[in-house]
Amino acid sequence: MTGKSFPLSRAYSLLEPGPVALLTTAFGGRTNIMTMSWHTMMEFEPPLVGCIISESNYSFGLLESSKECVINIPTVEIAEKVAACGNSSGADTDKFEKFGLTAVPASQVGAPLIKECYAQLECRVSDTRMVADYGLFVLEVVKAWVDPTIKNPRTIHHRGRGSFMVAGETIRLRSKMK
Amino acid sequence: MTGKSFPLSRAYSLLEPGPVALLTTAFGGRTNIMTMSWHTMMEFEPPLVGCIISESNYSFGLLESSKECVINIPTVEIAEKVAACGNSSGADTDKFEKFGLTAVPASQVGAPLIKECYAQLECRVSDTRMVADYGLFVLEVVKAWVDPTIKNPRTIHHRGRGSFMVAGETIRLRSKMK
Repeated sequence: MTGKSFPLSRAYSLLEPGPVALLTTAFGGRTNIMTMSWHTMMEFEPPLVGCIISESNYSFGLLESSKECVINIPTVEIAEKVAACGNSSGADTDKFEKFGLTAVPASQVGAPLIKECYAQLECRVSDTRMVADYGLFVLEVVKAWVDPTIKNPRTIHHRGRGSFMVAGETIRLRSKMK
Repeated sequence: MTGKSFPLSRAYSLLEPGPVALLTTAFGGRTNIMTMSWHTMMEFEPPLVGCIISESNYSFGLLESSKECVINIPTVEIAEKVAACGNSSGADTDKFEKFGLTAVPASQVGAPLIKECYAQLECRVSDTRMVADYGLFVLEVVKAWVDPTIKNPRTIHHRGRGSFMVAGETIRLRSKMK
């Protein structure tokens, strides 16, 4: 684990570029990993994240029961594992074991961090009013970790049907955006 | 305008990678452009998009009143204009005129398309229940346009504080993800 604590006030900068994420959950002795692209920041501080999770996903029940999760952000080095997590179900697969990913205890929540990811956001469910209609969970980020050696993470971004954009160069623009 | 009609069932593939978007709105003779990064797909078909828009944005009132907008997706070629739109307010600036962007009539909504963007999603507001608490507008995409000559759009992705990631290469993975 090379991650260092990262200020919650800057957590948005990890998710706002729109990377594919790996959501980890744990409940009743079961853990799972879900590949997830449908998420958005909703508030800077405390950082709130909206995630769309279908009832058909095994993670849905674990998240509803535990009210906790971790949003792990992978880079292209483990892209095959990320896709493999999306191609299988936690109902019949221990994805940590099958895909060789390492579960590390989180500090604030029961769900594990994925060691092979460059950043991890520990979250608690804060609003479930839109779950029934849209599968929208509002999550509060309560702790963030980032590998400080990775300045320009080569995150992956889903373009549909097995096509993924890999993060390219970073440019600077005069911007008042936070 | 080089855009061609794009299937609504594939609209998700334009937004899911998480690009910075330019939201256009129009009401009562006023139009505006808002730079926006906080959005997520919420449903495939009909395509629903969740967008977070602060009450402090001039576009908030135009969207609330008109119940329509266009999500335009720019590429790095106009990145300076995208940042400039984010640094100014529609309350005192005609951004189309000031930044040399071209408004083109949309087919289904009153808000204009931005000609210089590689894709445009015409949207109607479909759910405002979470606007008061989070500024979350649920939008239904009713028409999509894409420049078919651009296969790997060099979209820009906000990393915070004037830092933007530019879309790099596209890779293919065995994936059952839609």
